[in-house]
Amino acid sequence: MSAHKEVDTHLNIVEVAERLFRQIGFQKTTVADIARELQMSPANVYRFFAAKAEINEAVGRRILREIEDSVGEIARLPGPASKKLRNVIVSIEKLNAQRFMSDRKLHELFETAYDENWPIMREHFDAMDKTLAQIIGQGMAGGEFRPGDAGLAAILVRSACIRFCHPRLMVECAQDPEPTVDQMIDFCLAALKVGSA
Amino acid sequence: MSAHKEVDTHLNIVEVAERLFRQIGFQKTTVADIARELQMSPANVYRFFAAKAEINEAVGRRILREIEDSVGEIARLPGPASKKLRNVIVSIEKLNAQRFMSDRKLHELFETAYDENWPIMREHFDAMDKTLAQIIGQGMAGGEFRPGDAGLAAILVRSACIRFCHPRLMVECAQDPEPTVDQMIDFCLAALKVGSA
Repeated sequence: MSAHKEVDTHLNIVEVAERLFRQIGFQKTTVADIARELQMSPANVYRFFAAKAEINEAVGRRILREIEDSVGEIARLPGPASKKLRNVIVSIEKLNAQRFMSDRKLHELFETAYDENWPIMREHFDAMDKTLAQIIGQGMAGGEFRPGDAGLAAILVRSACIRFCHPRLMVECAQDPEPTVDQMIDFCLAALKVGSA
Repeated sequence: MSAHKEVDTHLNIVEVAERLFRQIGFQKTTVADIARELQMSPANVYRFFAAKAEINEAVGRRILREIEDSVGEIARLPGPASKKLRNVIVSIEKLNAQRFMSDRKLHELFETAYDENWPIMREHFDAMDKTLAQIIGQGMAGGEFRPGDAGLAAILVRSACIRFCHPRLMVECAQDPEPTVDQMIDFCLAALKVGSA
């Protein structure tokens, strides 16, 4: 098999797994199910992924990368840092809420990834912190936010907004009318802006 | 039985249940275990609590009331609102962390209460919000914080600090060195203070 074909097969396995995870949930999907859909042997799937857990992580990583990409795009747009920060948090909340509402079975993958502290979650938070720090650093350099440690500020904003981004907390807090995501962002912006101490 | 004795028995059941919950966990503790410790029949326990779930809630409520009382005391002390707000959040975090470190089995009760949205949790958040709003309202009246909706500000502070107060999140975030509780409180105070927008 050529290197090109190997990459294709790898991607096919992840795509089929994601589809099955949406349909029957990641815990019920077996390597045999995935192999059957692809008309290959389970042994062939295992040539690409040493264990089912690796397929779970690959599916999770792909979806988290999509979030990271769309957030990265927002960060690169022109405009004030406060507006970008709001758009980033709102968009993370929307993507999570959508998945929870229309892909409840896929959402379970992220609830478990959080509970069991899978490495993909740590990588995702680090990527998020990097983008948030970039936006906040821009706001500090431009005089919009008071000067300080942009990396720490990013972690504080992510922690303050965790109720909107954490897959399980989102569900727990779903009936609470307040705070709204906009109220929480206003609160974070007030903490960052020039004049606050 | 006199009304006085009825109250005693009620309290005894809760106290014995709490001790057993610490020793073997709330899920493994049966009404028969509690009755045996009190040298009474399970039927007598059921005169006071219609179901085991009611005993679970009574134990949880008693411990949450202790937190509420100690937080209420801090709110009544003289001094600046910002100092009281810090002391309240730090003391909630300490009480939760202590329980998690030294009473892991009892901690499970609160993890489940959170997951299953028991009414005692809602009551507890309402009590916390009331105390936080009281402190923030004092700070707004005294010119320490900028004027606004103290009730909403209380909910925002509680949400921003959830990583330190939520029994499961506390565990998930235990390895993250940042934010510290003091960094998060500084962030919240910056959002509340005069000069922030």
